[in-house]
Amino acid sequence: MSYKIFVTGGCRSGKSDYAQGLADRIGKKKVYLATSQALDDEMRARIKSHQEKRGPEWETCEEPIEVVDALKKLAPETDVIMLDCMTLWTTNCLLAEMSDEEILQRANALAQAFVACPVSVVIVSNEVGLGIVPDNKLARRFRDLAGAVNQKIAAAADDVILSVSGIPVAIKGSLPKI
Amino acid sequence: MSYKIFVTGGCRSGKSDYAQGLADRIGKKKVYLATSQALDDEMRARIKSHQEKRGPEWETCEEPIEVVDALKKLAPETDVIMLDCMTLWTTNCLLAEMSDEEILQRANALAQAFVACPVSVVIVSNEVGLGIVPDNKLARRFRDLAGAVNQKIAAAADDVILSVSGIPVAIKGSLPKI
Amino acid sequence: MSYKIFVTGGCRSGKSDYAQGLADRIGKKKVYLATSQALDDEMRARIKSHQEKRGPEWETCEEPIEVVDALKKLAPETDVIMLDCMTLWTTNCLLAEMSDEEILQRANALAQAFVACPVSVVIVSNEVGLGIVPDNKLARRFRDLAGAVNQKIAAAADDVILSVSGIPVAIKGSLPKI
Repeated sequence: MSYKIFVTGGCRSGKSDYAQGLADRIGKKKVYLATSQALDDEMRARIKSHQEKRGPEWETCEEPIEVVDALKKLAPETDVIMLDCMTLWTTNCLLAEMSDEEILQRANALAQAFVACPVSVVIVSNEVGLGIVPDNKLARRFRDLAGAVNQKIAAAADDVILSVSGIPVAIKGSLPKI
Repeated sequence: MSYKIFVTGGCRSGKSDYAQGLADRIGKKKVYLATSQALDDEMRARIKSHQEKRGPEWETCEEPIEVVDALKKLAPETDVIMLDCMTLWTTNCLLAEMSDEEILQRANALAQAFVACPVSVVIVSNEVGLGIVPDNKLARRFRDLAGAVNQKIAAAADDVILSVSGIPVAIKGSLPKI
Repeated sequence: MSYKIFVTGGCRSGKSDYAQGLADRIGKKKVYLATSQALDDEMRARIKSHQEKRGPEWETCEEPIEVVDALKKLAPETDVIMLDCMTLWTTNCLLAEMSDEEILQRANALAQAFVACPVSVVIVSNEVGLGIVPDNKLARRFRDLAGAVNQKIAAAADDVILSVSGIPVAIKGSLPKI
């Protein structure tokens, strides 16, 4: 049986810790598929500290944009893939100067690859649309896209978990009993 | 039987689509009561594209502020009215230089008209108060008012639905089974 | 029996009113433990108006930072303490130039004092992490800390209530039936 779980929530709402705890219970061979990149020393140190926290059972793969290919490539060698996170992926697509149409098409392709993946996948994202409309045009575009991307991944997931103040709340399916 | 439903959520959380799907199942004669206005060509094009997406069974009525009068006027000729949305209505009231007291009184009157309306009404709003306190004083005033207005409409509704990443979550009453 | 309840939500989501209603039903001798301070006339007027709204059964205690000491001092003389709120407490700690480590240690100490308190305690906080990442570095630090603090208090609480548009939603435990 493979799990297809989407974990979303605000900043520091406990979503990554919850997602990682799920993955730890799902399987032994685990890949952390990071959309962040070690571009400078500070970032490298931060990523290293996160890796050590996850422990040696976790492999790390950095892929800022081509996450569909990464899922396909990683699946045969692993039990569970944790993709963290969609909002940074959306930012990376914007920085690569993709159009809204291309980003949404890629989100559709990811939703399909998520469903089709032969192993368990836990995807993490942020809710960024519950504050005041930002003044900045690019921030508004990002906010719209991040919301649209979340909808596509949530629609494809079996279970959708909203993390609030560290409390996981099942808003689709149920809290996975693993 | 008439439904009194309040659908709220963040930006691009799927709330308007969900509300429209409810209205489509509630009745045949449907009015989209828009608080937005076609003030320029871009807005006109956007409104037209939304109208075409809703389909020919939907009539559209634009009313930025006097939504109580609009509900009363539209009810006799329709099965269901979708009022979209309260946050833009609050903005319109602020732009018309109303005091907080007047805006809250009008929100009370709308809550009463919502309950009293002989046909089904679905009201859409945004949650805008879950980010950082804005620097801008007007934005803080808007945020306070938008929250207070939402409370009044939610208190009057039979069902309150929070949409998160496109997933409707019943937080009062239940997901309408229509 | 003592209640340990955490009430969180956005700005003007009805969380303080809900928390106060709980406290009113829990006991007779009630203390409102405010992290806000009457630093100017406007603030003094606002605090006075809130006091009058709560009624004469409520005592008010202002303590911007040393809330652990306050809980211990107040408990013997009271039935229920309402601590309002953690986000302002976090702000006060930042203004006092504490490090992140110190703030988080103090939050741990508060979580322990909350659990150990012999009388009922209702703690109120804000969700501030569901908007766009703020440009401002201090705002990002505040947002991260506020989220981490909320997680610690929520983990210690028996019941965690998220207030949305004035609707209380139990996300841990249940809506207290008092």
